[in-house]
Amino acid sequence: MAFLDRIEDCRRFDPDGYRPFAVGSVTVGFVGHAFASRLKDFPKVFEVDTEGVRLNDRLAGFDSRTRAVAEVLESLRAKGEIRGWRDEPYPVTVSFSAAPLMTLERAAVPLFGVMAFAVHLNGVVGERADLRMWIAKRSLSKPTGPGKLDQLVAGGQPAGVSLSDNLVKECAEEAMISADLARRAVPIGAVSYITERPEGLRRDVLFNYDLELPEDFEPDNTDGEVESFHLWPIERVIETVRDTDNFKFNCALVVIDFLIRRGLIAPDHPDYVELLRGLHG
Amino acid sequence: MAFLDRIEDCRRFDPDGYRPFAVGSVTVGFVGHAFASRLKDFPKVFEVDTEGVRLNDRLAGFDSRTRAVAEVLESLRAKGEIRGWRDEPYPVTVSFSAAPLMTLERAAVPLFGVMAFAVHLNGVVGERADLRMWIAKRSLSKPTGPGKLDQLVAGGQPAGVSLSDNLVKECAEEAMISADLARRAVPIGAVSYITERPEGLRRDVLFNYDLELPEDFEPDNTDGEVESFHLWPIERVIETVRDTDNFKFNCALVVIDFLIRRGLIAPDHPDYVELLRGLHG
Repeated sequence: MAFLDRIEDCRRFDPDGYRPFAVGSVTVGFVGHAFASRLKDFPKVFEVDTEGVRLNDRLAGFDSRTRAVAEVLESLRAKGEIRGWRDEPYPVTVSFSAAPLMTLERAAVPLFGVMAFAVHLNGVVGERADLRMWIAKRSLSKPTGPGKLDQLVAGGQPAGVSLSDNLVKECAEEAMISADLARRAVPIGAVSYITERPEGLRRDVLFNYDLELPEDFEPDNTDGEVESFHLWPIERVIETVRDTDNFKFNCALVVIDFLIRRGLIAPDHPDYVELLRGLHG
Repeated sequence: MAFLDRIEDCRRFDPDGYRPFAVGSVTVGFVGHAFASRLKDFPKVFEVDTEGVRLNDRLAGFDSRTRAVAEVLESLRAKGEIRGWRDEPYPVTVSFSAAPLMTLERAAVPLFGVMAFAVHLNGVVGERADLRMWIAKRSLSKPTGPGKLDQLVAGGQPAGVSLSDNLVKECAEEAMISADLARRAVPIGAVSYITERPEGLRRDVLFNYDLELPEDFEPDNTDGEVESFHLWPIERVIETVRDTDNFKFNCALVVIDFLIRRGLIAPDHPDYVELLRGLHG
């Protein structure tokens, strides 16, 4: 096992398995062939051919696109064909800063291979030889990565909320971190990847933050998404991310990014440059 | 002007202008067509056709390759066809950790489009609103980037020296930083790029370090490579790298990486993800 295995777990994408999904003239996602065929049943909303899936151009505006696709998804959901429904509208866009073309229920985002965004927070205590990191163990009821290890706080980025407001909200819900403390988190970069998962194609950008926590801080989960929290010596974090796949696939990348930034994976590591490139795929 | 312009300055590479350069079965570089034609004069060393340049397989070992190529380069140098000769052997390799296949005079590395490695050090003082960064103005006699702005310390990585020993050596030569102080530098990542420059094709990996310096530290250049040092408020560094091309092309990337890691370029910047990807090209 090696750090690079965690990178490989986040770059499994064979374009031959997918067709581009376009809204107007813009490719916003990639749809697997089976799901593309499924969408043929809804020709008023999706134009499907062997080359791609295209939102019907009749659906010209943000609202009409959003409504029409939502109806299709509700119909598929009723037949049990969409799992892990969240009731969270995600923006459909080609980049975080671009105006969204529509929104899409979160559970359907990987089915359309649309980009998604999230905030992840490394919660740390102490420094140097005494550096420790708060690790969350995900609830067994989570639709993705049940029981896997996670950052202290992490959450998807819904449409229409700023990153910093979303971080403050997730800090409160997931770990009972006060707004005052949460606002001390420093944005330190992002990791991105495109990879096949059981739920579909994940094209994610994780905006990452570091937060130095007081020695007496104790996280407390309020939304049922975390089973338990653990304050681990950084050596244990290093070994776990290197030697196991106990961290959720994308959370492992956030840890590797942290370890590189702190000099804990050093530049003479044989995979150093490859790891850095892999964090920004 | 924008941060992204600095990234664009480091990704100018049209593969159509080059032929692969192979040693044995391994492609280690890319040679421009004009220089490839020039190498046809040395058929005992280089096998040149329209598809590529290949080191003559007769040259089977590290030493014989290194010697044979050195003779060709000396001959071209005598005719004034290689500029900026350094007398520094650089490793020819496909990655920093791989055993080099031969060495090559530094001045010829961009002519063969071979990967090169360097160490760059961000020297900083203070923190938050009081954060300042030491900036070196390169000597007007430097073969690349004369008069441009640079990190406090930066140096190419020759064959056969560890990164940390090279950093300590460069710290002493370029800024009179003691070995004790230099060893406190923290390796925090790398940037990489492939780009066309006047000297040829640069395929570089810069291993980057941060060093917190005492308020009373004063750099002093001993090797004539620096014209002057300046301790700038971070705002001035930000404006200079964003709005001018006064930083040497690759040093600008190291600054952008620093600004992202410190939250000084924030994740709501429209080019945030593109900048991060561009730092690891």
